[in-house]
Amino acid sequence: MIISMKLHSTREQIDAVCARVNDFGYKIHSIEGEERVVIAVVGVGDVTACLESIEAMPQVERAVRISAPYKFVSREYRKERSVFRINNTDIGGDNFIMMAGPCSVESEKQIMESAEAVASAGATFLRGGAFKPRTSPYDFQGMAEDGLKLLRKAKEATGLGIITEVMSDRDVDLVAEYADILQIGARNMQNFALLKALGKCGRAVMLKRGMSSTVKELLMSAEYVVAHGNPQVILCERGIRTFETATRNTCDIACIPVLNELSHLPVILDPSHATGKRSLVPALSRAGVAIGADGLIVEVHPCPEKAVSDGAQSLDIPQFRKMMADLKPYINLWRASREAEMAASVR
Amino acid sequence: MIISMKLHSTREQIDAVCARVNDFGYKIHSIEGEERVVIAVVGVGDVTACLESIEAMPQVERAVRISAPYKFVSREYRKERSVFRINNTDIGGDNFIMMAGPCSVESEKQIMESAEAVASAGATFLRGGAFKPRTSPYDFQGMAEDGLKLLRKAKEATGLGIITEVMSDRDVDLVAEYADILQIGARNMQNFALLKALGKCGRAVMLKRGMSSTVKELLMSAEYVVAHGNPQVILCERGIRTFETATRNTCDIACIPVLNELSHLPVILDPSHATGKRSLVPALSRAGVAIGADGLIVEVHPCPEKAVSDGAQSLDIPQFRKMMADLKPYINLWRASREAEMAASVR
Amino acid sequence: MIISMKLHSTREQIDAVCARVNDFGYKIHSIEGEERVVIAVVGVGDVTACLESIEAMPQVERAVRISAPYKFVSREYRKERSVFRINNTDIGGDNFIMMAGPCSVESEKQIMESAEAVASAGATFLRGGAFKPRTSPYDFQGMAEDGLKLLRKAKEATGLGIITEVMSDRDVDLVAEYADILQIGARNMQNFALLKALGKCGRAVMLKRGMSSTVKELLMSAEYVVAHGNPQVILCERGIRTFETATRNTCDIACIPVLNELSHLPVILDPSHATGKRSLVPALSRAGVAIGADGLIVEVHPCPEKAVSDGAQSLDIPQFRKMMADLKPYINLWRASREAEMAASVR
Amino acid sequence: MIISMKLHSTREQIDAVCARVNDFGYKIHSIEGEERVVIAVVGVGDVTACLESIEAMPQVERAVRISAPYKFVSREYRKERSVFRINNTDIGGDNFIMMAGPCSVESEKQIMESAEAVASAGATFLRGGAFKPRTSPYDFQGMAEDGLKLLRKAKEATGLGIITEVMSDRDVDLVAEYADILQIGARNMQNFALLKALGKCGRAVMLKRGMSSTVKELLMSAEYVVAHGNPQVILCERGIRTFETATRNTCDIACIPVLNELSHLPVILDPSHATGKRSLVPALSRAGVAIGADGLIVEVHPCPEKAVSDGAQSLDIPQFRKMMADLKPYINLWRASREAEMAASVR
Repeated sequence: MIISMKLHSTREQIDAVCARVNDFGYKIHSIEGEERVVIAVVGVGDVTACLESIEAMPQVERAVRISAPYKFVSREYRKERSVFRINNTDIGGDNFIMMAGPCSVESEKQIMESAEAVASAGATFLRGGAFKPRTSPYDFQGMAEDGLKLLRKAKEATGLGIITEVMSDRDVDLVAEYADILQIGARNMQNFALLKALGKCGRAVMLKRGMSSTVKELLMSAEYVVAHGNPQVILCERGIRTFETATRNTCDIACIPVLNELSHLPVILDPSHATGKRSLVPALSRAGVAIGADGLIVEVHPCPEKAVSDGAQSLDIPQFRKMMADLKPYINLWRASREAEMAASVR
Repeated sequence: MIISMKLHSTREQIDAVCARVNDFGYKIHSIEGEERVVIAVVGVGDVTACLESIEAMPQVERAVRISAPYKFVSREYRKERSVFRINNTDIGGDNFIMMAGPCSVESEKQIMESAEAVASAGATFLRGGAFKPRTSPYDFQGMAEDGLKLLRKAKEATGLGIITEVMSDRDVDLVAEYADILQIGARNMQNFALLKALGKCGRAVMLKRGMSSTVKELLMSAEYVVAHGNPQVILCERGIRTFETATRNTCDIACIPVLNELSHLPVILDPSHATGKRSLVPALSRAGVAIGADGLIVEVHPCPEKAVSDGAQSLDIPQFRKMMADLKPYINLWRASREAEMAASVR
Repeated sequence: MIISMKLHSTREQIDAVCARVNDFGYKIHSIEGEERVVIAVVGVGDVTACLESIEAMPQVERAVRISAPYKFVSREYRKERSVFRINNTDIGGDNFIMMAGPCSVESEKQIMESAEAVASAGATFLRGGAFKPRTSPYDFQGMAEDGLKLLRKAKEATGLGIITEVMSDRDVDLVAEYADILQIGARNMQNFALLKALGKCGRAVMLKRGMSSTVKELLMSAEYVVAHGNPQVILCERGIRTFETATRNTCDIACIPVLNELSHLPVILDPSHATGKRSLVPALSRAGVAIGADGLIVEVHPCPEKAVSDGAQSLDIPQFRKMMADLKPYINLWRASREAEMAASVR
Repeated sequence: MIISMKLHSTREQIDAVCARVNDFGYKIHSIEGEERVVIAVVGVGDVTACLESIEAMPQVERAVRISAPYKFVSREYRKERSVFRINNTDIGGDNFIMMAGPCSVESEKQIMESAEAVASAGATFLRGGAFKPRTSPYDFQGMAEDGLKLLRKAKEATGLGIITEVMSDRDVDLVAEYADILQIGARNMQNFALLKALGKCGRAVMLKRGMSSTVKELLMSAEYVVAHGNPQVILCERGIRTFETATRNTCDIACIPVLNELSHLPVILDPSHATGKRSLVPALSRAGVAIGADGLIVEVHPCPEKAVSDGAQSLDIPQFRKMMADLKPYINLWRASREAEMAASVR
């Protein structure tokens, strides 16, 4: 931790800061700058509490933490990529993951048709919401447990793994009965009661980045789940909120290599929410493969114009098939590069 | 609703859109523009579902909703300001509200000292978190029910109303036993499970605007609570997230008159979170009074340097007293203006 | 400057960084942290160049500058507020400044009518653009020198000082002939060629904050003008660009006390561009006075519905008169507080 | 244009709006909604002026433009991609463009070494700034004309085309003497005096998107250059400013397919400024190729640690060579796809 004092701090003020730092179990290296006093702090302790306390002192200009605030999710904790085996598929390894399906589970016919189509086109996970976070209380809120049962039926028919959203800590156990991966939506990324419950759910979790969350906050939320007992966390970039309205969100695609530098957890890209527009999904999907995401989650609907939600960003089935075909050479390049990386790390 | 078709749409494509609109129970007024076809839609129906469906049609350029998506919280539904009587105090009327207290309840001594100090300086509500949303799983998470009990004790001693945060739908009933106003934090503004539970809690709710939520989304979240049975919703501006880092958040102060134009609900300003810096709180508080907020919620701590959270933005007790004294002439102007408005609306 | 090395840096890597730092004339205080090496640097030199060089070194995690990058505009350089005497009016002292007038100079009739109306309502500066920055090449681009001549005529008739925009370093001398204050628009805040030319123009300059510029960048742009020879710089907050679209921009009103802490330069608030909506201007103006701005710049037009630009945010003349009357008690409080501050600083 | 009136508008208010619309030469289609009156407007006229005027009328809720505000740069104006032949290279066709070189021209040795290295690795344009936009007046401002002369020398030695920045309309003719492409920096994207001068410079122009500019504003700035006489405009995405600080800017990569849908102009991606970090450049470059950019502009320096600017984001020469080799299979896929597109458009 580095503390810089305001100009013209007195000896007593500096001593008071040092005393407070010592209270937290840290040691001091004080440095007299030409212009202002800077205090360097070393040791092990409760960094956040110490920082908060120091920053509240009137003569302190700024206190900056040097070490990362997360631990278990960091590359420093674990050098190799995490690989999770879920429904007989490795996520995070040398297998590019395709999750696809409708925004919401709407009916048996719709979900079965979707599941069969995406499975035959090469997807390995079926997405579909049974609990839907909707901005308006008057919009369709999802089929709840009935939807989960239909997802199970689709799984039995196709072998696809199931990824579906959970919105409340109350529902974690219920959803965990049916799903292979519990999805946490962007609006719940910092629903800490939910994150804690996920720590004990015994299922993999996919954490979508909040609309205005930094990469660091995404990792802190992942740390919540891991610290509460569940190491199987998958990260997902789905676009952030900016001033630009030409797309539904702004895809911060460069966060994927950033996350790969900082963390060992797998990262999935959601080109459907990131753009909000069907015609942009194939191009952004190619970019996601090329930049090194571990997989994609894509909205596909047998009849997007009749979808109860997100129709504008859903591919129809022929469009999804064409996209899968077009992605093939990119996925081949991806696999070669991933295999080379894994071979290198073994050496 | 207004639908604009892509250039060179064919007759069939236009007809298909019109047919879909009719499916939702709406009527059409089609207009041939010089450059592109625009379709105006009138009638009553499920606007969101219709919009989503239309936007998913390939020949549609854009579909724009004209009417507001919320109803009960709008000025059109209720012309006069809502006034809620809570703990013998009117919120939303001609009484400027001051809520004050520490970020977290830390100990009996701390909360009793805070309560007495803010009460004697003129506050009418005591704030203090028993359940704390913390970015890191390693930070202090609050005293939970023990904290709520201390808040009740402080209320008994001072007569102050209690406002405190609830983070999960599971805890709504518990917190409602102790609090006069349930506070929903910025990170939970779109925790829809929680919003639904608040609809039935029998207590007033203060909804903090999400860090990246629009004014419209804030009103939609309020609509959730009202539509689920609870009309007593207070809105709170606490700063939004932008590129600027000189302050903790960016206070969108102009949203206060915007909210007053769109809604009848009271609006509180939180200058502590909006700035993150003690020295800026008095100036922003004056601005909040002058712009017409219904009240302020301010962090005050007997010893900010020892606070477990948010010390840097907490006033100490003498600072709070001085601020209250300095605000007095502004509050007098506020009251005169509010009384004039109420007198005018009676006529 | 504080440099933190990546984990597991070798002795040679650390030495290489120290050697580079020495190349720039700085001295080292090296500190071994428990987790990672942090290097503190003191002395005087070319900070930016040194920072850039250090950050380019592969084993460096981060390099942080401690001192502010600006000098002449800082409070540390000058403790008292700067007061500029312009057209017999003090800006920055105990006189609240009102600048008002139309967005563009459109005709003699329009500008004379505007000038007389705002002068009689109490404004001391007339605003009005002769060179207009317009997003579209097809929109009205201003009357250029003819507009400047009309402004001079309005000044002769009313005694108002003139503030008007200059968009290119080519036009600085021309505009300086007619104007008392040269206004730099938000889009030109980092037009460095223009800033340099302003250093030599012999007139006061009002620098509007860029739409996505930080407070620090605004001060750096002011520093450009001062460092090139012109100390008379006035800052202006006019709203920044965020995700919120309920207002034209988001007024970062808290930047006013922030700027007052960091700098001695006067700060003006522009509530018209900040909101983009006439009905919000009076409330935000009150907030601007209360928070301690040195003045306001407000769009006023004799007939907003016929304005060639910005009609929606312009007050008409009766509205402006009413606002001036309503502001009077707030301005009285402002003056009392400013006088108290000035009296205190004399002691 | 679509105008929606406030609720409860009177007949006279509606008539007044219609009369104003007629003044601008437009025709009316009035539609009575159930809830509010919406007026549709058709015809040809000065849309912006009409919109501004209508929005200033008190009973108008909102006025929305339907047609795009730009013309020459739109796909509707020109269906095929624009291809510009510059220094014997086609930009916008089936040739992927690599522009590379240092941030600033620093010395003859530096620029010659850079030029030879990037040419031998496969680049076809040399970048390098002679006029540098720097946030601080105390930082290196570029070698000016001496720098331009060195760029010419590098061109003579290697055959590379030259792209370099111009910052003021005063310097356009000078820079046009030396450069093949004039680069406009993000901070000058809305320097309208400069854009107008570029309309007459007789050279291709690369327009970098402003830090907080929308896609639509970027196209409007391109429209300025084209409308003033110069059709050779290349667009460049270099990252926008958001709340995220893990990268220097946030790369809005999805704007590339958006721009391709809206416009026929070529689009270049700048992964160096978009990330600000050398280690992220290769991954983002792959994504740029995969998503369909027409080329990349990359910072390369013989010794990044000694660069006077942007060292942290510059590749050194071996890194650039490796990146070029790694990109090859992606560029092959790019070319195949572009050739297929061009073949299809011929049919």
